[in-house]
Amino acid sequence: MAFFGKRFIGDIPQLEAQPVVLGGMVWRIRNHGKVAFCDLYDATGTIQCVASRDAPEALKVLQTIRPMTPLVVRGIVHRRPEHLVNPNEPLGAWEVALEEARPLAQPAEPPFDLDSTDLSIETLLDYRPITARRPRERAIFRVQATIVRAYRAALEARHFTEIQAPKIVGGDAEGGANVFPVQYLRGVPASLATSPQLYKQIMVGALERVYAVGPVFRAEKHATTRHLNEYVSLDAEMGFIEDHTDVMAVLEEVVRAIVAEVCSQHSDSLALLGAEPPLVPEKQPFPSIRFPEALDLITEHTGRDVRGEPDLAPEDERWLSQWARERYGSDFLFVTHYPSQKRPFYTMLDPDDPALTRSFDLLFRGVEIATGGQRLHREEDYLRRLRERGFNPSVFQFYLQAFRYGMPPHGGWGMGLERLTQKMLGLASVKEATLFVRDITRIDSRLFAESSQPSHAADEANA
Amino acid sequence: MAFFGKRFIGDIPQLEAQPVVLGGMVWRIRNHGKVAFCDLYDATGTIQCVASRDAPEALKVLQTIRPMTPLVVRGIVHRRPEHLVNPNEPLGAWEVALEEARPLAQPAEPPFDLDSTDLSIETLLDYRPITARRPRERAIFRVQATIVRAYRAALEARHFTEIQAPKIVGGDAEGGANVFPVQYLRGVPASLATSPQLYKQIMVGALERVYAVGPVFRAEKHATTRHLNEYVSLDAEMGFIEDHTDVMAVLEEVVRAIVAEVCSQHSDSLALLGAEPPLVPEKQPFPSIRFPEALDLITEHTGRDVRGEPDLAPEDERWLSQWARERYGSDFLFVTHYPSQKRPFYTMLDPDDPALTRSFDLLFRGVEIATGGQRLHREEDYLRRLRERGFNPSVFQFYLQAFRYGMPPHGGWGMGLERLTQKMLGLASVKEATLFVRDITRIDSRLFAESSQPSHAADEANA
Repeated sequence: MAFFGKRFIGDIPQLEAQPVVLGGMVWRIRNHGKVAFCDLYDATGTIQCVASRDAPEALKVLQTIRPMTPLVVRGIVHRRPEHLVNPNEPLGAWEVALEEARPLAQPAEPPFDLDSTDLSIETLLDYRPITARRPRERAIFRVQATIVRAYRAALEARHFTEIQAPKIVGGDAEGGANVFPVQYLRGVPASLATSPQLYKQIMVGALERVYAVGPVFRAEKHATTRHLNEYVSLDAEMGFIEDHTDVMAVLEEVVRAIVAEVCSQHSDSLALLGAEPPLVPEKQPFPSIRFPEALDLITEHTGRDVRGEPDLAPEDERWLSQWARERYGSDFLFVTHYPSQKRPFYTMLDPDDPALTRSFDLLFRGVEIATGGQRLHREEDYLRRLRERGFNPSVFQFYLQAFRYGMPPHGGWGMGLERLTQKMLGLASVKEATLFVRDITRIDSRLFAESSQPSHAADEANA
Repeated sequence: MAFFGKRFIGDIPQLEAQPVVLGGMVWRIRNHGKVAFCDLYDATGTIQCVASRDAPEALKVLQTIRPMTPLVVRGIVHRRPEHLVNPNEPLGAWEVALEEARPLAQPAEPPFDLDSTDLSIETLLDYRPITARRPRERAIFRVQATIVRAYRAALEARHFTEIQAPKIVGGDAEGGANVFPVQYLRGVPASLATSPQLYKQIMVGALERVYAVGPVFRAEKHATTRHLNEYVSLDAEMGFIEDHTDVMAVLEEVVRAIVAEVCSQHSDSLALLGAEPPLVPEKQPFPSIRFPEALDLITEHTGRDVRGEPDLAPEDERWLSQWARERYGSDFLFVTHYPSQKRPFYTMLDPDDPALTRSFDLLFRGVEIATGGQRLHREEDYLRRLRERGFNPSVFQFYLQAFRYGMPPHGGWGMGLERLTQKMLGLASVKEATLFVRDITRIDSRLFAESSQPSHAADEANA
């Protein structure tokens, strides 16, 4: 279609010995005088192109262009000699002998070596429009797209319907200082949603099983490798459950489906990133531990007395993950029955111990990636709980209709896409798994930048 | 799994004469004394349940519960007598003879007749948590989920990768007063994205073909049947195009795939809503008309002299749609080559007439549902255009990296999910196709409500 029959690089293996037109971006260039090579990437893969003196004009093009030149080429598909082929590169067995090469733009010289393995996170983000083009980053964000696709497919196979939850909200629903104020029309105060929670619960009454994928916003002043101020939440909510374990069972199936899809579609990306496939127990469900027992275990084994704590500290989550990996061969661990004081107002208490809740977190390689549980479903329970927590129920009038007019027992979860991507790929920071980071220091560019010179991780470590 | 082997209603046709446990919400109840019926719906469909004196306790339950009671039932699947079956109801051939029925909550009496066919839009939205449960609304939002799924599938089959575009943005990129201010951390001024435009362009340099589905925000003070202040935009962007017609060709394939999927999956919903399947030309592409010729045509046929206008008025779009339907048998019409003054700064001018652009709108049944075109791809063109329009290029420093370091010719579109849903289903207002409306009068609830008594369309028409 475009450019007179441009084909995709991914189709090359079906085109041996045939003429082909490709369009893509130049990455590395290797000029040996009589012959020159470049790596060309498009939507589907990367291929080596070669120009020799048989095609002097194409050779001259390869000898004069810069990396990241958009290039249209015409040539013949060849198999490469077997001893040169790297088995981790799916298209490494092929190359295109160029007859013609046409640059579509003249890019500036890259501001630093894009193939460098020690770019600092600040440089990665300051220059995201070009660092996103690195093989490493293309791999990360393709895997992320697969995670989302596998998430949706697993839920749709289980009769969940996608809903569109709004992001501008009125009342401060979850009740915290951590919301971003928005100035709505006619000066009406509003804020950005910290979660689609209330909307997905509402929709259980209509569609029984719903899911939502979308941005959520937290005005938290963290500066860690785990936090973002805008991130993508993978949410789901389901009706007709007996308790939170029904929700956990579906979440586990979904997570297993994601892991299987990433491992089967992206073994080359995992190899490129040096990431190990997640360890999942094969004939057992994900291990699960109750919160009070988790505290006992940590106290017993680490010497830190955490009994009576209302929540797990980051180091506790790391220790528990390591424990589950050693004991159960699992990179995933459910922690259940968190204390009610740390859980939101809509959380169902544990009838056997009302200081605890029918809730869970899912830990993955040391970090909480999902949180969920059973919710209250009767209006009178909401009214009592809201008053206990000092909320004015009239602020929740719209939402409370769902319970006044009949709701089944229900529950669900929210899962952070960037954390899941980070931990799946063994990345040092969640920001490496985020295309355009919003955090305490930046919205695309740094908010209070003194300088945005490229920096290297090693420099920063020395600073 | 949940509730001791609860099955889904959609599986009923495979369960003839078998015992089954179902969980769902009660809709209509019909009590005939010796026998009582209810319609029960779940994530997968609606089924009639019947209780007779053979099961006196189940009969008593059906005789005493209210609509929207969440109910778990046990019974035997039967085929219904053929003369009672409505062919538009996929599960109408089956019923479940109850042995047991257990209500899981005691809902309040509905505040108005939910089956009423003339609820006003205000009542529909004020009571969305329960009006979303109506068969009509469940059909609308299931079709909407299918539209999004078909959109993604069509693009993924064409090598587009999904990206996550941020919603909090810094500089006012598209340059207009129509943005919602957000108070970011440490008082940094920010706003809500009116489009993922800059981000999807950036990502063409990395992934060649990308798409994004997500909310966008427009602080426009419209009060029409076409406008929302928060809506879902179906975006895509692709590299290595020759001009805007390459983009139109892909958009047309995607729209055809959506129409085909909705018609094949939801014939019952279309029937319920009285919606006609969209007319698409079978052996021809979608018709297309250049903007100046469109103005001539309107002037010639309607007597209104619109020559020299910079844009199409809503009545012009309606007239053109009607013309395309009569002339080409198509509910879809491309209008191309809009004047540059009404198009954003990144728009590629038409080299044959620089007062016009390589741009298009897609009209569907009288409304613009998508807008797109070819973009500039060279840094110098951006710098010149930004200065011409009075922008400070340094505000766009981050984005401009994409062009400085090499970008292919590219283009794309944005399509409004709610408008597409509305027009596909023949709904009077885009708000009927929006679960939780944000407009000049409401965020969930009305912003300045005097009263939120239920009202009927007829009452409002009289007012």
